[in-house]
Amino acid sequence: MKGKLFYIGLIISFVTTGIAHYMHLNSTLQFVIACIAIIFVAGFLGKATESVAHYAGERVGGFLNATFGNAAELIIAFFLVRDGLFDVVKASLTGAIIGNLLLVLGLSIFAGGLKFKEQSFNVKLASHNSSLMILGVVALFIPAIFAGGLTTKETSTMSMIVAILLIVAYLLWLLFSMVTHKSVLSDEAIEHGEAAWSKGTSILFLILATVMVAFTSEWLVGTLEEVTHRFGLSELFVGAFLIAIIGNAAEHSAAVMMAMKNKMGAAVEIAIGSSLQIALFVAPVLVLVSFFVSGTPMNIVFTTYELAAIGVAVFITKSITQDGSTNWYEGLLLLVVYIILGVVFFLV
Amino acid sequence: MKGKLFYIGLIISFVTTGIAHYMHLNSTLQFVIACIAIIFVAGFLGKATESVAHYAGERVGGFLNATFGNAAELIIAFFLVRDGLFDVVKASLTGAIIGNLLLVLGLSIFAGGLKFKEQSFNVKLASHNSSLMILGVVALFIPAIFAGGLTTKETSTMSMIVAILLIVAYLLWLLFSMVTHKSVLSDEAIEHGEAAWSKGTSILFLILATVMVAFTSEWLVGTLEEVTHRFGLSELFVGAFLIAIIGNAAEHSAAVMMAMKNKMGAAVEIAIGSSLQIALFVAPVLVLVSFFVSGTPMNIVFTTYELAAIGVAVFITKSITQDGSTNWYEGLLLLVVYIILGVVFFLV
Amino acid sequence: MKGKLFYIGLIISFVTTGIAHYMHLNSTLQFVIACIAIIFVAGFLGKATESVAHYAGERVGGFLNATFGNAAELIIAFFLVRDGLFDVVKASLTGAIIGNLLLVLGLSIFAGGLKFKEQSFNVKLASHNSSLMILGVVALFIPAIFAGGLTTKETSTMSMIVAILLIVAYLLWLLFSMVTHKSVLSDEAIEHGEAAWSKGTSILFLILATVMVAFTSEWLVGTLEEVTHRFGLSELFVGAFLIAIIGNAAEHSAAVMMAMKNKMGAAVEIAIGSSLQIALFVAPVLVLVSFFVSGTPMNIVFTTYELAAIGVAVFITKSITQDGSTNWYEGLLLLVVYIILGVVFFLV
Repeated sequence: MKGKLFYIGLIISFVTTGIAHYMHLNSTLQFVIACIAIIFVAGFLGKATESVAHYAGERVGGFLNATFGNAAELIIAFFLVRDGLFDVVKASLTGAIIGNLLLVLGLSIFAGGLKFKEQSFNVKLASHNSSLMILGVVALFIPAIFAGGLTTKETSTMSMIVAILLIVAYLLWLLFSMVTHKSVLSDEAIEHGEAAWSKGTSILFLILATVMVAFTSEWLVGTLEEVTHRFGLSELFVGAFLIAIIGNAAEHSAAVMMAMKNKMGAAVEIAIGSSLQIALFVAPVLVLVSFFVSGTPMNIVFTTYELAAIGVAVFITKSITQDGSTNWYEGLLLLVVYIILGVVFFLV
Repeated sequence: MKGKLFYIGLIISFVTTGIAHYMHLNSTLQFVIACIAIIFVAGFLGKATESVAHYAGERVGGFLNATFGNAAELIIAFFLVRDGLFDVVKASLTGAIIGNLLLVLGLSIFAGGLKFKEQSFNVKLASHNSSLMILGVVALFIPAIFAGGLTTKETSTMSMIVAILLIVAYLLWLLFSMVTHKSVLSDEAIEHGEAAWSKGTSILFLILATVMVAFTSEWLVGTLEEVTHRFGLSELFVGAFLIAIIGNAAEHSAAVMMAMKNKMGAAVEIAIGSSLQIALFVAPVLVLVSFFVSGTPMNIVFTTYELAAIGVAVFITKSITQDGSTNWYEGLLLLVVYIILGVVFFLV
Repeated sequence: MKGKLFYIGLIISFVTTGIAHYMHLNSTLQFVIACIAIIFVAGFLGKATESVAHYAGERVGGFLNATFGNAAELIIAFFLVRDGLFDVVKASLTGAIIGNLLLVLGLSIFAGGLKFKEQSFNVKLASHNSSLMILGVVALFIPAIFAGGLTTKETSTMSMIVAILLIVAYLLWLLFSMVTHKSVLSDEAIEHGEAAWSKGTSILFLILATVMVAFTSEWLVGTLEEVTHRFGLSELFVGAFLIAIIGNAAEHSAAVMMAMKNKMGAAVEIAIGSSLQIALFVAPVLVLVSFFVSGTPMNIVFTTYELAAIGVAVFITKSITQDGSTNWYEGLLLLVVYIILGVVFFLV
């Protein structure tokens, strides 16, 4: 029943967005409808990925889940890169990272903590994740610190090299966590439901979902400039808060639901894993993509504001998760920091 | 006997300060006498608070102890705010935070460590405190980082919003630590002596002590500008070191005494708890107060030097306390960092 | 056999370097030969130190090992200081710190991790080391943050005071780790081989080795300016990467070998201990030395780039070692960060 309603919503929102786009309706209206559609198509992509993962076996399935987990963000960002909106791209990457660490994780810990006095999870996992998060932070901070002393060309070179190193580190992390040290890190596995469809249908739906995400993303990105202009919002705020929240809606609900079932390990894995993927995989891939797609390549130099937000989010998340147990107040702390960042980004 | 001497000192120092003030004696003399008086009246306020807390029962008593713990700092800062000496206020808040984390805690750990090879305490407490400390640091750093991109009016708005969020977070922390998760955090409780007086007398003395602190603070603040000028000291140094040390003298001795009785948990709670209260409660309350009392509201933007000092203090304290055990060398490290900061603040 | 080859290499490389120097051969050639000679004479100094330490008994021996461990770096830096090449000195100190933390430790953890799934060591040791590392970082960051508000004279004063405080803290650390808390920190001891020679010969060789290091260092430093110029390398890069790697070659191989024998505690002790010594002892000693030797004293103010590199290295090392266990991926992370830093330092 719930499933049926989802598909009806998916089709209606997708079709409406398409019509609104091709009929050149009011751009605010287009923007709102596209936002709703993104939530549905990203949810559909998530379902299709999981179903394919089910047939692919645990190892390849884990890989698929990991790489398709942020597919929506990657596709939205792709269109932003194509249009040369590099500042919005970086803002939305920043937003996705802090959204996952502060909002998704904060809500999960808070909601779970209201139901259970203390929730715990595999400390090893938290410790490994936090080392990786630090690599991510380092990799984003170093270019910004050194960019002042470099020419534009040198900055591009540095960005490309750092991007390639990060992608290598990320691929080796998959090797580490899925092959050589699988057993050490396993926690309550993220709940894998039954496969929704037959194998063939699953693959077909994965392709279909990817295409739908691509279209909706393009339509959404098309309205962005006009909407931010009309409401006097900065691209920073729209990228870092609006787009990031929309693109992550599916993960939000999944993580919170895990936490309320007392599977805090899975919730932490979704939230931290997703932000790691953005810093260590999505961001560097976009740098390489921009090099081929756009005239001028996007560099990996984030603004001070973005770095401050990311640094703060990583630092407090690391502090809260490193003991392997959580309570409602820790969730609240994460949310308070998210709100503070939201306020200052809105004002800037 | 020891008690009697204390009250004699209290009355003499308070009366002398009053006389010196109204007879317009030499301002250096006024300053020195007022400093001595502050130590006595702050000690008296501490005793009265504890006695009232004794009658109020554990829960309300804990709340009273927590909120009156930094009453002297709050009152001194109130008069500085009234006189528009915002820079000295922020310097004294900075000084109170680093004084508690580095000097009070450092002395406690060092003195305790000379007597006991290794002293340990509840790791959960340390871990929770450190998450809160990070919230405090984040809440002080973010406005400073973003203030560059804001107008004065926007900075005020941001300061007010951040202040309100911090006060809410602090009140919920009291709820967390005194109601929902009381049992998890309890350690060797801070030693509560016998109530010194009857219930009525205790309340009367609490009011009396508060009034005495208020008068002495006002007299002290009145001499400040002339004294700093005469000795060529910066307001930063006076606020961050002189006033902070004087205002915290009572807590200093209490924490060191706990440590030497091998109650390191209580010493840590006093030192860290007090600096948390300043960052998360006293500072934001002063922002709101300044909005009503003073013409121009005080913003929550600290200088780079102050933030560096706070960041350094929090970072090293977190590192030293997070394993739940201490030794003399760790105390020494905190003291060395305090001296280094004292030297550079003196030179700047 | 292996030993014999070492001594042949030692004598040949040393003599050749001397000849090249006095015959004013091509400076690039001089530089290359001197680099090779440094590796040999530093290795000889290490052997001689260990042999003397063997006769001196555990306590004095430990002290000797600790103070002579970075003798080569100290001597090279001494000649750089004498020639007033302060920027290269600071770059080489930075390079020695990050080289030990990222390259030596990274290689050790990586190599050990390929052979053993998980390697563990005394967590207490890691925790103490990390508190000390933070002192080191604090002591290097504070002068840089505050230097902006100081005159040259005040900066010198501050540098001298900070240097003296650090040396005191370091000496007390030796007291702590070798006297009062020896038992708490002991892990698998660093492997002490048989004494290679009789007591008298050992002392003689220690003196001889020190003299040889001194000569070779002077010859090396003499070629530096011309070589960096000819190849268009920055002094920062040469100091931070070339000189640091050469000066530490002996420690590199020792640490990696320990790790491959599953003595990870010893490897961590070598790498972290060595970088601690540089930050807390070698750097402040050089400040004091420069005050007496050179006309203008070297200040302790590092550049933003150097501080960023040190901060990043300490932060990620702390995160990786604090759980007392390591695996190949953690080693790889350290190496990736080292490479990223190498790339940006090369480009700047």
